[in-house]
Amino acid sequence: MRLAETVRTIPHYPKKGILFRDITTLLGDARAFRTAVDALVQPWAGARIDKVVGMEARGFILGGAVAHQLSAGFVPIRKKGKLPHQTISMAYALEYGVDEMEIHSDAVTKGEKVLLIDDLIATGGTAEGAIKLLQKIGAEVVAAAFVIDLPDLGGAKKIEALGVPVQSLIAFEGH
Amino acid sequence: MRLAETVRTIPHYPKKGILFRDITTLLGDARAFRTAVDALVQPWAGARIDKVVGMEARGFILGGAVAHQLSAGFVPIRKKGKLPHQTISMAYALEYGVDEMEIHSDAVTKGEKVLLIDDLIATGGTAEGAIKLLQKIGAEVVAAAFVIDLPDLGGAKKIEALGVPVQSLIAFEGH
Repeated sequence: MRLAETVRTIPHYPKKGILFRDITTLLGDARAFRTAVDALVQPWAGARIDKVVGMEARGFILGGAVAHQLSAGFVPIRKKGKLPHQTISMAYALEYGVDEMEIHSDAVTKGEKVLLIDDLIATGGTAEGAIKLLQKIGAEVVAAAFVIDLPDLGGAKKIEALGVPVQSLIAFEGH
Repeated sequence: MRLAETVRTIPHYPKKGILFRDITTLLGDARAFRTAVDALVQPWAGARIDKVVGMEARGFILGGAVAHQLSAGFVPIRKKGKLPHQTISMAYALEYGVDEMEIHSDAVTKGEKVLLIDDLIATGGTAEGAIKLLQKIGAEVVAAAFVIDLPDLGGAKKIEALGVPVQSLIAFEGH
């Protein structure tokens, strides 16, 4: 199946001139969802992954399925103020201004191998922040995996420059 | 394994007198996460489930894994303003005031069988709102499933009174 065709493109959302890639149509299509999860899992079949880390909120959907399939634990990275125990946080750049993401300080044991999952990589600011947070608490980030890459925005290159391999299933050029 | 023992209890969070049940320790424990997902899936093995519906945000983690395991599509119900296409929304009661949740109007086809997933049921206000939203767009809600039930708050009874069976894996009394 052509996975890219199950993604709905919404023009001028959230604002004029932006083509928003809506992944809910992919998730809702049982065959496409299974294809995407299985493709994210495939490179790691038989490898040791201790934790799959998902980014709030769409990364939770894919990350939960990938963690279960790999018999790994699941760790959420959330917007600031949502995690109930001791956290460490990281500021990251948005298009306008900055936001903060958090992880529980004890979410990963030193040396654990983690796979980072999100639905989409654009400029890579969120993934970069997540990788730095994970490294700070001692994780070895073995890769970052996305359903969609917008290569014109250079995010995958930025993450690979950190020494973390990037996997993506669909590329939309000229976003 | 005793699944309940993998849940971390945080006293006085988010405010004095509340025992917060923190499920991140269960999710992060590979064996506990697998046990929980498999137990949520088990009643539906061989049954027809078209869509698994997860509640933002922790319901996404479990719902994604359950949907993949059942070869179903996944549908998110989100906080208002997060879904990019045409939605219908529903107000629901919080402890103080109300909030609104939304679903894409085309997320389910009339007559599709859906399983609702969230991490925890307390008073049942969120689950009740979700079921009403789903029924409004033509879904047949075959059950609502939760990792944790707080039976003293009566949520499961409220949902069963709507004709929707409730499954839960852990009950914490005297929350």
